[in-house]
This record gives sequence, structure tokens and C-alpha cells, in this order.
Amino acid sequence: MGATMTLPSPATSFLEEATNLLGQRGLTSDPELVETWLTDWRGRYTGRALAMASPASTAQLAALVKLCAAHRVPIVPQGGNSGMAGGATPDDSGNALLLSLRRMDRIRAIDRDAGQVVCEAGVILQHLHEAADEAGMRFALTLGGKGSATIGGLVSTNAGGTQVLRHGTMRAQVLGLEAVLANGEVFDALTPLKKDNRGFDLKQLLIGSEGTLGIVTAATLRLLPASNGRVTAWTGLAAITDARALLRRVERDLGEALEGFEVVPAHCLDSVLAHQPAARAPLAGRHHWNALIECVSSSADSSDLRDKLETSLAAAMEEGLLDDAAIAANERQAEDFWHLRDSISAAERALGPAMQHDISVPVEKMPEFILAASPLIEAAFPGTQAVAFGHLGDGNVHFHVLAPAAAVRGEWEEAEGKAVSARVHDLVCEWGGSISAEHGIGQMKVDELARLHDPVALSLMRSVKQALDPDGLLNPGKLIAADPTACT
Amino acid sequence: MGATMTLPSPATSFLEEATNLLGQRGLTSDPELVETWLTDWRGRYTGRALAMASPASTAQLAALVKLCAAHRVPIVPQGGNSGMAGGATPDDSGNALLLSLRRMDRIRAIDRDAGQVVCEAGVILQHLHEAADEAGMRFALTLGGKGSATIGGLVSTNAGGTQVLRHGTMRAQVLGLEAVLANGEVFDALTPLKKDNRGFDLKQLLIGSEGTLGIVTAATLRLLPASNGRVTAWTGLAAITDARALLRRVERDLGEALEGFEVVPAHCLDSVLAHQPAARAPLAGRHHWNALIECVSSSADSSDLRDKLETSLAAAMEEGLLDDAAIAANERQAEDFWHLRDSISAAERALGPAMQHDISVPVEKMPEFILAASPLIEAAFPGTQAVAFGHLGDGNVHFHVLAPAAAVRGEWEEAEGKAVSARVHDLVCEWGGSISAEHGIGQMKVDELARLHDPVALSLMRSVKQALDPDGLLNPGKLIAADPTACT
Repeated sequence: MGATMTLPSPATSFLEEATNLLGQRGLTSDPELVETWLTDWRGRYTGRALAMASPASTAQLAALVKLCAAHRVPIVPQGGNSGMAGGATPDDSGNALLLSLRRMDRIRAIDRDAGQVVCEAGVILQHLHEAADEAGMRFALTLGGKGSATIGGLVSTNAGGTQVLRHGTMRAQVLGLEAVLANGEVFDALTPLKKDNRGFDLKQLLIGSEGTLGIVTAATLRLLPASNGRVTAWTGLAAITDARALLRRVERDLGEALEGFEVVPAHCLDSVLAHQPAARAPLAGRHHWNALIECVSSSADSSDLRDKLETSLAAAMEEGLLDDAAIAANERQAEDFWHLRDSISAAERALGPAMQHDISVPVEKMPEFILAASPLIEAAFPGTQAVAFGHLGDGNVHFHVLAPAAAVRGEWEEAEGKAVSARVHDLVCEWGGSISAEHGIGQMKVDELARLHDPVALSLMRSVKQALDPDGLLNPGKLIAADPTACT
Repeated sequence: MGATMTLPSPATSFLEEATNLLGQRGLTSDPELVETWLTDWRGRYTGRALAMASPASTAQLAALVKLCAAHRVPIVPQGGNSGMAGGATPDDSGNALLLSLRRMDRIRAIDRDAGQVVCEAGVILQHLHEAADEAGMRFALTLGGKGSATIGGLVSTNAGGTQVLRHGTMRAQVLGLEAVLANGEVFDALTPLKKDNRGFDLKQLLIGSEGTLGIVTAATLRLLPASNGRVTAWTGLAAITDARALLRRVERDLGEALEGFEVVPAHCLDSVLAHQPAARAPLAGRHHWNALIECVSSSADSSDLRDKLETSLAAAMEEGLLDDAAIAANERQAEDFWHLRDSISAAERALGPAMQHDISVPVEKMPEFILAASPLIEAAFPGTQAVAFGHLGDGNVHFHVLAPAAAVRGEWEEAEGKAVSARVHDLVCEWGGSISAEHGIGQMKVDELARLHDPVALSLMRSVKQALDPDGLLNPGKLIAADPTACT
């Protein structure tokens, strides 16, 4: 029957059905529209895709996922494509559907009294900040990619940023969640309940699962009352251990007002100043270490806070914890301080090839880790230089290893660079730390996770993945490698 | 071969092997020792058990669980046996091993600088409070059963209590976790990392899973600096909606210092005063509602806090939010206020039969829920009286329905009482709430959860349970009912 018909290929049939579901705007195979999303923003990973789907609603996405399940089409969810680990880039098989959540960009509701906002997955972080601001509130998570990063991506990767010290990672902001599961069912846990002990907290399982267990479509997020100004200081220190002691002192003196504490070694500041001739050093002298400190006032008056921070820093100077300090005179200068911090990655990249590591160890141990690990790496790989900067108060630094002067970009990374990273990760594990503090695993660290993570945890993760996505269609190849001993 | 031997029964063989593993002290079948643990503390559930195991260490427990897996012996973990939902009581088959964690009661380490303590599962909450106190710190979760509740039980049930408003439930206190899985492997995630994005947060999955996914053996818990005194107030109000407005005002004025806000209707206070002739009413008049407010000072001086609370309450009185208020003059009086609050359950029980419901709705909606639900229940079940008290700031109240005057204890609960509970739970679900805010599901609410919970969430939970405990040996019959449509 029908033997004379030209049967459509399975892929064609799938694409037709998907177009019927999503409309022309919802599905495209046009290379000009798709190509830019097939490479991650840092240009490290490039893949191919069957097409790019852009559903307009959770219901459309649920129907699409059901269709994918029926046709066994893998799905690679993508938000702002600003991830750091290649988690939103498909492999090069071309079998997968690239799923853009960017069209689902509505803020469904904002409730000032309850301090809550319901965002769809495609809402850009910057837009959320603006909407919160207009409502006289604030959303207490921010990071460099805020102009492109989406709520769905931030939830799926449990993003961090520079306010984790006080407000926690994305996990701490999520009060409710909506997601489409591998079978196309909608998991609706958007209603925020402060206390709810009806079994396993499935929301927590989805947060940080990088689209491998479900596709986050919306989240109810915590809003805080708007702040009443901030006080930002740049300090110069002799040693990283002093930075830890300084952090403790400021925590004790300023309490909950302390929101940011970032450390910057001399090398990073030098690089930024060399890379951006217009930038100015905040302090007169050169210091081995710098700490950028930010306090935020929630009460009516921030002059009080300024006095408190001045007193605290003066006492710290008395104790010999710091050599010099400048408190930003105005908002403009505070922005300048932060701009120095935010320019480190770009400035270091301009210097030449480097391997970057987003690592954490127990908070208390980080200064000692930096002091111990840096010379070990530099000795094992002559000519390299280890540079650590970032979120000392979270036990999380970006540990960059710069290549020797003669190294060729694109070659060194593949040759010596990989060995450098393996050694850094080995050290992190020896210190009880994490090879991914805030960037996730994506495709970049799948092998390293499989090599270094606790086998019991890996096996648990595989069991959960198998249970929730038995056909392996959700973001395949990301986060967990297939079990090498499995007999499938 | 060996046909003339008397073969031991499988159970005997298991018990012998278990005794070899745990020693005489670690395993007993002596009814006198076991019996008291076969009934929950409120006397609602009684079960039977093969024996009671009391391992001395995680390693011993891991070996025991492996043995149980080999012999297909179900395990019912138990801490202080002070749960509210029968979650630690075995069924009456007598097939299960009752597993006491009480012998594992070491505080392994306390780190003042890092603000952390590592407790074994059997550490009693009261002991943790004392140990923290000795170290100049405090553990910010407390509840009525603190003299018997253990850390393992508190983690497994994600316990709440009276400080959740400010400090969150047990989940928020857990920085690291150790558990024995169904196959006897040890999941070791005790090392606390403030930022760690290595895949699914398995720790979160175990918290609140009531021993159905793994057996918590130890936890790293958050400690806070010791407080510098508290200020406790008892206030009288005309309406529950005023209580919500009062809470908002005090939150705004006192900020992070506000730690407790409990509401008590006139009926509850009357019951307590009638039940405890020595107790005194904190205020001269009788008020429809009372709110117990507690603020805790973390800075050097609490007199400041007292002034602030006085000012805040005076302003609230100006606004007509409250009719009268008394601030405890000293620690003794503060204790007396709390004693009134903590005596409600016992006093209400003394009045006659009642159905108790531990429910939550979105925080903002709780006053309206109480106002709407109480008359509906009282109309549907003539002669009953609905009484709601507790954690208004968490959207969580204990919603008790007192039986009609003529009701006979032990009969009414089984007859009309069950219908009352079903109706209360229906209403809670209509309001988007939870039928278990802080007590968990245990065996008490398994059927109601299966009846009322989102089928998508239930199915997800069953998948996770199947993945982590495929033989169903961990606390069987608790939390999730077997899938009625499953064809096993």
C-alpha cells in the first residue's frame, strides 16, 4: 500500500510536524539564522543541528518535546548562548534539534508585596534587573553576561556571580519552577511555598542539571527591596592570607551589608591597566593583592554604612591587614572599580594563551590553596604563570595558568594546556574542592568529571539521568558521560 | 548433599550474619529493648520488626545495608522516634529491620572559624545546641522535640520549627551530607563547598526524602555566631489580617533581627490557660488573635533592639494593627511567652478529639485562607471548630479541627475525622498549598499525597525512587505509594 509514493525521510517528516506545531516563526533551518547559535560565544565549540526551534509557550514546547520523543530527536536547549562550558552547543552529528528559549521572554507576574517575580526562561537577566528596579525592588544576582544570559540558562547552570557571598547562587533565588520533562509532560512547581515537605524536592534536582533532566520554561524568583545605595572600596594588601582576615573583619563589622569581596592579584591589575590605557589604578602604589569590597545599604541612609566601612578598614590597617584603601567617592568611581575587576578575563586573554579554571575549595582553605598550588603548577610547567582572582569569600577563584612567553595560541592549549588543567584539577580534588564552582560541566568538563568525581556520586547521577530521560534525548553528551561499563 | 543438616531459616541466617557484623550490642531481638521503638511517640502507629540494629559507625551501617540488600530485608531507619507522621515506624509484617541511628551520636568536628559542625545522625538536637553554645556559636533551628529529635531525622524530614522565618528549614542548615545508599555504598558529600556545580545536587534529593532514598549518617551543618540576647513580645490583635500587616511592619523596621512570628487565636490561649492553671495571660484583655514576636540581636547590644521593637509596635498600634502589647521584661518572661505557644497542642488535645493538619499556602494568602476555610469546615461538619495557629510568616499553620462536644475519642477520628481531613486537604490544594508543610508524609499521608499531588510530580518521584532503591528496601510504604498502574 502506497508503494508508489515518495516516502518522506524521517527527518523531513519530523520537521514538517514540528513546523505544524510551532508555525514558520517557530522553526527554521535557514543557515543564516541558525549558524550564529551553533558556536558558543567564546568560539570554542561548534556543532550542527537539524533545525532551530523557537517555541512561543510552554504548551508549544511540551508538544514539541512529545514529538521529539516519538521521533527520537535529541534536544539541545539554549538561552543566551553565553555559557562557559559549551553546554548549549550541539555536537557535530547534526541529529539534534537546537531549542532556543529566547522567544519565551515574558515576565508573567511581579508581586512587590510577596517579593516575587515569575519569569519565562527567555527573560534576559538585564531585563529582569530593569523590571525589578521599576517595581522598587532588586534581583540579587548579577554577572558579566547579564546582557545576554537568560533566566532559563541561569537556573539550569545554577549561576553564581559577584553577589553570592551574601545572597547565594541562582538556587537560592529560585522559589518555584516550571519545566518540560523528557516525555513532554509539564512539571509545574511555580507556586512558591516557603514550607513544603511533600517528598523529594524535584525543583532542586532540575536546578543546575544543565538541561539534561528537563527543560526549564519558567521560574518564580525572589526579589529583595531596592537598596539605598552602595559603598565600594578598593584595598591594597601584601598577602592573600591577609585578604581572608580582612574579609572576616569586614563581615564582623558590616554584617549582612557586605555583598561583594573580590580579590585581584597585582598581575591581573597590571594586565587590565596595560590593556585599557584609559583605566586608572585606584591606589597610588602597587600591591601584591587587591580586594574589591562592596557593601549595600537596605536602610534609608547609606552614609552610616560609609562610616562603618571606613572605621572597619582603618582598624584593619591598624592591624596590618591592609596597606592602603580607597572608598569610591561616587557611583561613577564605584563603577570604575568594578570595571577593573570585570576586565580581567579579557585583559589576561590578550596577553597570550592561557588555561582557565573555575574552581572552589572549602572557603577557609582558599588562601592556602592558592599559595600551595601556584608554585607547584609553575614548577611542573616551566615558564607558566598561575594567576588566581575572584570570589574569595565563596572559596571560588578563577585560577588561570598563563602559557610561557613563546607559546603559540591554538597549539599550546592542546599540547601542554590540557596537562596543566589535569594537574590543576588533580590538586583541587586533593584539597576536597570542585572542578566546577560556578560554570557547570557542559561538554568542556565531561571527561574530567568522569575521571575525578566520586564514583558513587557519578553512579547516582547516571541512575537519575536514566530514570528521568531513559532515551537520552535531553542535551546528550553534556554533564554526564555514558557509563563506560554499561552494556548497552 | 547435607540433606540431614537442619538448615537455618533465611531470617536466622540474616540475623546471625548481622550480629557478626554489628556485635551483640549492635543487634537485638529482645522484645523489652525493641518494643518501645515499635510505636511512634504519639501512639498512633505500631509495627513489628525482625530485630533492631544499632550500628556504631557509617562503615558498620554500610556493611549491614549490603547484607540487607543480599537478603532482601527491608530497613526502617529511626532517629529519636519523635516524628509526626509515622515515618519511622515499621509496618506490621515483621519483615523489616528496625535501624536505630541513636548510637551514632558523635559530633565529629566543630569549626568556629568556618561556622560549621559535623554531626552524626544520632546526635540529639539539644546536644547540638549545647555544643554550639559552648563554642560561642548557635545552631539556628529548634523545635518542640529537641530533647529527642536527632540530626538524621531532622535532615531526613527537612524539619522546620519556630526560626524558619529568618533562617529557613533544615535544608538551609545543611552544608554537607553523608548517607548510605540502598546498595550499601557510602555517598560522601560532607565537605562543604559554598559553590559547586558538578551536576545534580544529590544532597538536596536526600534531604526530606524520609529515608526512602538513602540513610543519612552524618551532616555538616551551618553555625551562626552566638546571639547577644533576644527581645520577645506578646501582642493582642483584632484580626488575622492585622497579624499579616503587623508582621510586614516589624520586618520592615527590624529587618534581619526578626526571627519568630507565631500567631495564636483566642481559643488556643484560652485552652492553654485552662489546661495549665499556673500559666498567666500575658495581656489584660482577651484578643481574637495574639502574635508572639521574637527578635534576636547579633550585635553587642540588645537594648537597641528593644527600643526598635517598642517603636515599631507603638507605630503599629497607632495604625490600629494591634490593640495591646507586652515586651518580656526578662529572659524568664520570654520563656513564659514561648511556653504558652508550645503548650497549645497538648492543651487542645486535652479538650477532646481533633484532627490536626500541618499545612501551608503561599505566605501572602494565609490570613485569607484561614478566614475562608474555617467557616467552610465548620459548616460542612456541624459542631466542629477550626483553630489555626503557628508560623504565619512561613505561610504555615497547624490547622486543627476540634470534634463536636459529644464526639467519642478514638471513634470520631476514624469516622467523621477522616472526612474532615480530606476536606481540609482539598481546600489547601485549591489554594495552591501543601498538605505537609513541615511534618513530612511518613505513613500518615501516603494516601492523601497519592490522591492529591500533581501526577507529574508523583510520577517523577516514583522514577527517582525506582532508580535509587530498585528493590524497595528503604523505608517501604513511606512517602510514596507504589504506582497503582504499575504491572509488577
